[in-house]
Amino acid sequence: MHGLQKKAILVVCDGLGDLPVKGKTPLQAARKPNINKLAREGATGLMHTLGRGVVPGSDTAHLALFGYDPKEFYCGRGPLEALGAGLRLQKGDIAFRANFATVKDGKLVDRRAGRSSEGLAELAKGLDGIAIEDVKIILKHTVEHRLALILRGSGLSAKVSDVDPEYANEEPQKCRALDGTKEAEKTARIVNEFVKRSQELEGNPINKERAKNGLLPANVIIMRGAGEYRQIPGTEERFGLKAVCVAGGALYKGVARYVGMDVAEVKGATGRTDTNLDAKVDAVISGLKNHDFVFLHIKGTDSCGHDGNFKGKKEMIERIDKAMGRLMRTGAHIILTGDHSTPVAKKRHTSDPCPILFWGENIRQDNVRNFDEFSCAAGGLGHLNGLDVMPMVLDLLDKAPICGA
Amino acid sequence: MHGLQKKAILVVCDGLGDLPVKGKTPLQAARKPNINKLAREGATGLMHTLGRGVVPGSDTAHLALFGYDPKEFYCGRGPLEALGAGLRLQKGDIAFRANFATVKDGKLVDRRAGRSSEGLAELAKGLDGIAIEDVKIILKHTVEHRLALILRGSGLSAKVSDVDPEYANEEPQKCRALDGTKEAEKTARIVNEFVKRSQELEGNPINKERAKNGLLPANVIIMRGAGEYRQIPGTEERFGLKAVCVAGGALYKGVARYVGMDVAEVKGATGRTDTNLDAKVDAVISGLKNHDFVFLHIKGTDSCGHDGNFKGKKEMIERIDKAMGRLMRTGAHIILTGDHSTPVAKKRHTSDPCPILFWGENIRQDNVRNFDEFSCAAGGLGHLNGLDVMPMVLDLLDKAPICGA
Repeated sequence: MHGLQKKAILVVCDGLGDLPVKGKTPLQAARKPNINKLAREGATGLMHTLGRGVVPGSDTAHLALFGYDPKEFYCGRGPLEALGAGLRLQKGDIAFRANFATVKDGKLVDRRAGRSSEGLAELAKGLDGIAIEDVKIILKHTVEHRLALILRGSGLSAKVSDVDPEYANEEPQKCRALDGTKEAEKTARIVNEFVKRSQELEGNPINKERAKNGLLPANVIIMRGAGEYRQIPGTEERFGLKAVCVAGGALYKGVARYVGMDVAEVKGATGRTDTNLDAKVDAVISGLKNHDFVFLHIKGTDSCGHDGNFKGKKEMIERIDKAMGRLMRTGAHIILTGDHSTPVAKKRHTSDPCPILFWGENIRQDNVRNFDEFSCAAGGLGHLNGLDVMPMVLDLLDKAPICGA
Repeated sequence: MHGLQKKAILVVCDGLGDLPVKGKTPLQAARKPNINKLAREGATGLMHTLGRGVVPGSDTAHLALFGYDPKEFYCGRGPLEALGAGLRLQKGDIAFRANFATVKDGKLVDRRAGRSSEGLAELAKGLDGIAIEDVKIILKHTVEHRLALILRGSGLSAKVSDVDPEYANEEPQKCRALDGTKEAEKTARIVNEFVKRSQELEGNPINKERAKNGLLPANVIIMRGAGEYRQIPGTEERFGLKAVCVAGGALYKGVARYVGMDVAEVKGATGRTDTNLDAKVDAVISGLKNHDFVFLHIKGTDSCGHDGNFKGKKEMIERIDKAMGRLMRTGAHIILTGDHSTPVAKKRHTSDPCPILFWGENIRQDNVRNFDEFSCAAGGLGHLNGLDVMPMVLDLLDKAPICGA
């Protein structure tokens, strides 16, 4: 354990919690000897990520798990996605999630342009860096039909409505100012002008190429989730914690960067069920060398929940179980949980709490022998909130300040 | 479950929680097969309505259960009683709970005028609508010796003391301004003038009639619980929840109206142990047709607690158990709890938590087999607060917003 016992790995299996289907949840149905050993040797409980009854989004949920109260620190989804895409943000930047989409006769035929990424990086480059009024547009294609989009300039505001209607067969929505400020008016005007300009992509040779290959044209860019970026104190400044993120999905890297974590580049980390878990565990073990805290994010459990795929979720948990074996041998403390429940019966996030376990030295082992939604209700940690996790981690690592003296 | 599984019934048995007498609480002593079945098939816990150690009033307790933090939304008891009495309030109205009482030689002989309502509706009418300065007095007799009283006019304040001394053999108290504002001074002046005028009822023929029938004269009106009314966003606006209240007691209807619920008129719902529970269940079943959420209030358990009547409380619970059978067949989610404890040994509200259960589809069934203060301590929900209940209900009904994205 020499040296490493004062380090911690937070493993977040996205959407882990569930509800019983034919009497069992995926966690109960999965064969998971390593995870159950962690539960047996550790302390367990149920965690309400954002408090009882609150349905967490992935972004706010992770902020809470990292010790950042979303009420104070949430900046909207756009900047977190942009950070996840590797863009550097400046104070005052307004960032959006954006899609290439297909429009015909003013209506959206497909709000994802068929999901094919063919040629889209190049299309994005053609618009990256253009100016509208005194505002610079920064654009980066990420995966499939997705983009990060930033407006950089003076006098802007994130209080604007979405262009993306979230349903097909509707028109792209006019961006509107959500409050009466001239900053919001200006931002909406620039967004609308940009959407108009993006429709000039219709005649771009790349779209002719896509048509030849039977793909829908990417002839409009639609955006949603405006947020204003600001720099916040990172985990090292706030907690004395050098932290690193191992994740496939861009959003999770984005939240990690937002709170000042390093982000490991991992080949084969896809943010899907086909992710290379071995490579991610390698990255965790490597990350422990120069960091106090490693955040390992695994997305597949959530995707299976959204798809209503019980078997897939159970099998993903069994793959995670194998990965835990190697993590247990690092000697680091392990905290294992989810960011929220995504029950296969509901195919959406719910407020049902996630089981959580703390494992390692100087932890009060309880009588729980299985890691699942029911066994952990009797755990020694009782019911806790997401914001409780990081202070508990800091104390385990001898990094918690005494309150008072 | 067709269609109705996305509806919910909140059953609040007033003052339900208790302490053991000879080893058992009324809940433990009662035969209650239906309620135990709900517990066995549902998720249970203990609920601290306003937080640990806080002794709830009925008004604040119900606000919390409806998802309205009393710290933000409580407006005093007076307006809630007035709403319960069916009076329409306007922004800025100052409302009080009031009693007809009996005064002799300046002292209160009976602060309830013997509880008899004989002639009191007519006595109230004689004073209803009078003006003092520029303030209109609105008065309505409700039950027994009780009245709702409203001051409507400009420049008033609820920061005034009670006239009702709450004990017999004292003088009605002078109403005083509780802060230095001229609004409170004016309000106190008008209240005192009204109390003086109410004493002119001494010579009213109705009081001669009462005397003939051996009843105490209703020769003064005393008030307490001043509150300033304001309109707050209702459950439909805040939560997207169309809600209806089924209750006998005026206060509960008042709180329900305050938060925008419809109120069912139920014949035989008395707010006492003699209430017609069958008629109330009929009203619940009918209310489910056009509402997402039905609040069913049952008062008898609390009254027995205040009277120190163990047997009565136990039997009331057994009557409630029979009513639950029909509610279970509606297919709606059922949430069963109390608003606070009223232990027969203490004859008052206490902060002891109430058992609570959630029953219906997509609920994590725990191992608890009996619904009582001790069994539910081991329930899967652990300890929750009153304000947690409504968010949990909203998530069950697929009406909870995602926090973030």
